[in-house]
Amino acid sequence: MKKIYTIFALSAASVAFSQIQKVEPAFWWKGMKNPELQILVYGKNIAGNDIELSDGIKVKNIQKVENPNYVFLTVNTSEINVPKFKINIKNKNKIIDSYPYELKQRNANSAGRKGFSSSDVIYLVVPDRFANGNPKNDSQPDVFEKADRNFDGGRHGGDLQGIIQNLDYIKELGATTFWSTPLTEDNEKTYSYHGYASSDLYKIDSRFGTNEDFFRLSDELHKRDMKLIMDFVPNHWGLHHWMIQDLPSKDWIHYWNDGEKGFKRSNYRQAAHFDPNASKSDIEGCVNGWFDTTMPDMNDSNPLVVNYLVQNAIWWTEAANLDGIRVDTYPYNNREGVTQWTKRVMNEYPGFNIVGETLMHSPAHIAYWQKDSKVGAIEGFNSYLPSVMDFPLHDIMATAVNESKEEWDKGLVRVYDVLTNDFLYPDINNLLILVGNHDVNRINDAFKGDIGKYKLVLSMIATMRGIPQIYYGDEIGMQGSKTVGDGDIRRDFPGGWKDDKQNAFTESGRTGVQKDYFDFTKKLLNWRKNKPVIHTGKTKHFAPENNVYVYFRYNEKESVMVVINNNEKEQSLDLKRFAESLSNIKKGKDIISGKELTLQNSLTIPSKTSMVIELK
Amino acid sequence: MKKIYTIFALSAASVAFSQIQKVEPAFWWKGMKNPELQILVYGKNIAGNDIELSDGIKVKNIQKVENPNYVFLTVNTSEINVPKFKINIKNKNKIIDSYPYELKQRNANSAGRKGFSSSDVIYLVVPDRFANGNPKNDSQPDVFEKADRNFDGGRHGGDLQGIIQNLDYIKELGATTFWSTPLTEDNEKTYSYHGYASSDLYKIDSRFGTNEDFFRLSDELHKRDMKLIMDFVPNHWGLHHWMIQDLPSKDWIHYWNDGEKGFKRSNYRQAAHFDPNASKSDIEGCVNGWFDTTMPDMNDSNPLVVNYLVQNAIWWTEAANLDGIRVDTYPYNNREGVTQWTKRVMNEYPGFNIVGETLMHSPAHIAYWQKDSKVGAIEGFNSYLPSVMDFPLHDIMATAVNESKEEWDKGLVRVYDVLTNDFLYPDINNLLILVGNHDVNRINDAFKGDIGKYKLVLSMIATMRGIPQIYYGDEIGMQGSKTVGDGDIRRDFPGGWKDDKQNAFTESGRTGVQKDYFDFTKKLLNWRKNKPVIHTGKTKHFAPENNVYVYFRYNEKESVMVVINNNEKEQSLDLKRFAESLSNIKKGKDIISGKELTLQNSLTIPSKTSMVIELK
Repeated sequence: MKKIYTIFALSAASVAFSQIQKVEPAFWWKGMKNPELQILVYGKNIAGNDIELSDGIKVKNIQKVENPNYVFLTVNTSEINVPKFKINIKNKNKIIDSYPYELKQRNANSAGRKGFSSSDVIYLVVPDRFANGNPKNDSQPDVFEKADRNFDGGRHGGDLQGIIQNLDYIKELGATTFWSTPLTEDNEKTYSYHGYASSDLYKIDSRFGTNEDFFRLSDELHKRDMKLIMDFVPNHWGLHHWMIQDLPSKDWIHYWNDGEKGFKRSNYRQAAHFDPNASKSDIEGCVNGWFDTTMPDMNDSNPLVVNYLVQNAIWWTEAANLDGIRVDTYPYNNREGVTQWTKRVMNEYPGFNIVGETLMHSPAHIAYWQKDSKVGAIEGFNSYLPSVMDFPLHDIMATAVNESKEEWDKGLVRVYDVLTNDFLYPDINNLLILVGNHDVNRINDAFKGDIGKYKLVLSMIATMRGIPQIYYGDEIGMQGSKTVGDGDIRRDFPGGWKDDKQNAFTESGRTGVQKDYFDFTKKLLNWRKNKPVIHTGKTKHFAPENNVYVYFRYNEKESVMVVINNNEKEQSLDLKRFAESLSNIKKGKDIISGKELTLQNSLTIPSKTSMVIELK
Repeated sequence: MKKIYTIFALSAASVAFSQIQKVEPAFWWKGMKNPELQILVYGKNIAGNDIELSDGIKVKNIQKVENPNYVFLTVNTSEINVPKFKINIKNKNKIIDSYPYELKQRNANSAGRKGFSSSDVIYLVVPDRFANGNPKNDSQPDVFEKADRNFDGGRHGGDLQGIIQNLDYIKELGATTFWSTPLTEDNEKTYSYHGYASSDLYKIDSRFGTNEDFFRLSDELHKRDMKLIMDFVPNHWGLHHWMIQDLPSKDWIHYWNDGEKGFKRSNYRQAAHFDPNASKSDIEGCVNGWFDTTMPDMNDSNPLVVNYLVQNAIWWTEAANLDGIRVDTYPYNNREGVTQWTKRVMNEYPGFNIVGETLMHSPAHIAYWQKDSKVGAIEGFNSYLPSVMDFPLHDIMATAVNESKEEWDKGLVRVYDVLTNDFLYPDINNLLILVGNHDVNRINDAFKGDIGKYKLVLSMIATMRGIPQIYYGDEIGMQGSKTVGDGDIRRDFPGGWKDDKQNAFTESGRTGVQKDYFDFTKKLLNWRKNKPVIHTGKTKHFAPENNVYVYFRYNEKESVMVVINNNEKEQSLDLKRFAESLSNIKKGKDIISGKELTLQNSLTIPSKTSMVIELK
């Protein structure tokens, strides 16, 4: 990976003495499925010059835009037979500046990479709040906001080095895939720590580290047989993105007020996409409105914008060897634009995985966004997005477990009800399932620290169809309330900072309670790792009775019986009811208690307990 | 219609002196699309005799069942060229009994009848609680339960004569279609008034009147250009149905406990039908379980049962000249059985309409049951059911209007949200929309008698896509709480009984408050009658802002703007937002206030007010 940085250095150096201030992507690869590459060259009045490539390489197209500081060169990389060539800026036939462009060799089987899947468990981290591995980079000269750990909306200093130092912790927990909220530079003056207002889509924020540190994270994960998901935000950039500061054209972002630049908040009415009764103004209000004041909305009906985003995603995938992408605010994008983006990225990596943040609340609405959805097909739509998030399940999980009485439509019936909708999804195994993330109330907050309740939800999340995603800290019982604020649900992980009073990353550093949370999570997730029946087996469930939910995961080879007793009383289950799933099985082992069980006539389960029974 | 009754009399007479105790259907028609007719002949040990038809008519099939008291004769009516023939019971070559069977001529254009549609408004009545037109039939010798108006679960004496006497009232209100809960005999010993435990599917309950009275109701409706919907209950009969008392075969109804007759309540988990994770026991628990203790569950996977139900529905349609059928507890039936039933009835009357009670709570689940549903098609299902009920809309209506503050997902946003799902439905105009029926809390109870709120919901129900259904008494502000009990939401209509202190059927009898309710309803519904733009126009709606919901109904010829202000404050709407719907329209008339309006720049609407504006 060092070579890449030589080039970066050259590029940065070139800024000093020439008209070329930026070239994006800074380099590319030979042998992509789509051989076309569009190179953005940025520099003062650069469009007023002639631009040529060395080695007789043909420019397929030079696209100029309203702003003369930009040109977009399209080349056909399949026609380029040298690994390096020059982009020459000429004025009156004289080369006044030059950029050395490299077409690298792709890694072996780069195109055939396998993305994360239901055989994985994802661990989600807010990097500023996880671990500060390099206190020297907490406040950097190239960005506005400096570290202030006392401010819950400020930069706390967590970084890539901190993550890398704790990968063994994550691996020990049983997670197999790492996802962090955005790491690219966010140069807002305040509240920049979340990273969703990126100021440079090609550069890791210096407070997190360098691009090289990110590539190292990828290597370290892969060494541990783990995977890396990058957070990608096509819908909006930050106000301080260098291109937003010097827009290529008015239609690079969404303007409001009849062509004048200005802020208008999104109406957030995502259903407008498929609503046959929707007014145009509501669709535009959702898609073109700004997600927040600091987040100009990208015009993803502008082909240059879409192309920029496609290449950026491919660049990171190739350079950082990604195993997947998580797409922020998927339905806030122009539907056609984001579909094209998804299709083009997936076309380059057919075995890859991309999960969209589909923060809607009915299964039909989530199913709509999944690739080959028959719900989408009702109105002729196909998103090409392989994976979506099961927010309807998330929505009810805390409530379901907090309701311990037997009621017709309450308690675990809520979970059962969500799963009755599975027929709506084209690929049920590619649903990301979660009980927490950086945008919602902490699950252990909803449970007021009742570890018994945590165990029930984790038992379900770890054994249900889909890809479990764990939010950092849930596994040690961390609390935090969305009502208090985002900062409260993104508290620092204890032990991530040198002066922390305790270090929950180590067994000896964990409190007794933290140990209980961690050990339970570790046991279940590690068990899950080698259980294809959980990864891709079918589900058969039985409508909860007395607030006890029973389901089976099964394939041709094995079968697991999950029993969740959310009742305040011990329950004795008449096993006759489950005969169709138990057939002749009379024995099993509950991997939670470790006990061997006899499955004849009845099964007794204590109150507020889960069993995950390997059937024999 | 008198002729029909001559035959009935003959049939009844024949019981006295012969082995034939029942023949069903008692008569039939020539020229049905499906020429096959299956005649049930019932009598003690009748299967031990030979059965022949007169006039050389061939019996296509004689089906005997476990119980020798039944035979099922199949004939091909297209091969029968006489209007009357005899069913002869022979023993040792001697005719020991005989039933004169008639094949009538169908009414002109019977097959081509048009069912109720979105051009109609349905008025739903619980007949025992509407009006007692004939006090002489309140307590009848042929049935167990006698009248007791002091018991809220008892028979109160309402009847067909009472309905007929008040058809002008219903017509004046602006309803065009009459639906009553079941009128066929329900001979339960108590709580029989609702009629959902039928003891004879071919006979009107004598406390309501006679079959002839029902035919007269149909004639009186048609004279007034109104339509008749009959309530049909294929899922269950009453324990006292004569066939349940002497079952044709064990598999006529659903038995439980391994073949022994017995009650097992349905689990009511209707989603099991499409749930890919459902256990067999849950599907059977829904479909085969009894709806209630007095309601044996029909085995609609038994072809004889399905055929009986199909012929019964066709018999009533043909005999009583129905304009539609409402099917009780549609998803509690065996899916294939009820589909076959629906398909066969609709096949006989392609322009007919059948609405299923689809008491589920998400639009995808309702859409699943509508004919040609693409949601159903996901798993290869087509119900052939033309019309379904929009319970998701019902679910939120009272809450939506009770929330007068502006909140992101509350108030009228709830109504908007329901409508964003319209793409899921194959035929949005054939959705029955309601704010009340005999099974749910009275809408005016939820509003605690606040007529302003009633006006808001009625304005929506009367102008929205679908077929509005009004529940008797809502139009005069009647209250009643489901929490108190079913009797409370099915109170007697004031004026239906001779000794009632007031008579809300007449203008002079209505209190001031009742008059306000009635007049508002009357104005809107009568206006709706001749408004194709409301019946079949498209909808364009705008996400509520400040708890004001604006939508347009439009077609090529006209356009109506509906404005619902559920805010506690007067609102001034900037009309620019609606430019795409208003285009150059600058004037309109609010049919509620009667005022001519100028639609320039802004529109002011008082708090808690609706406007239905014909655009000019």
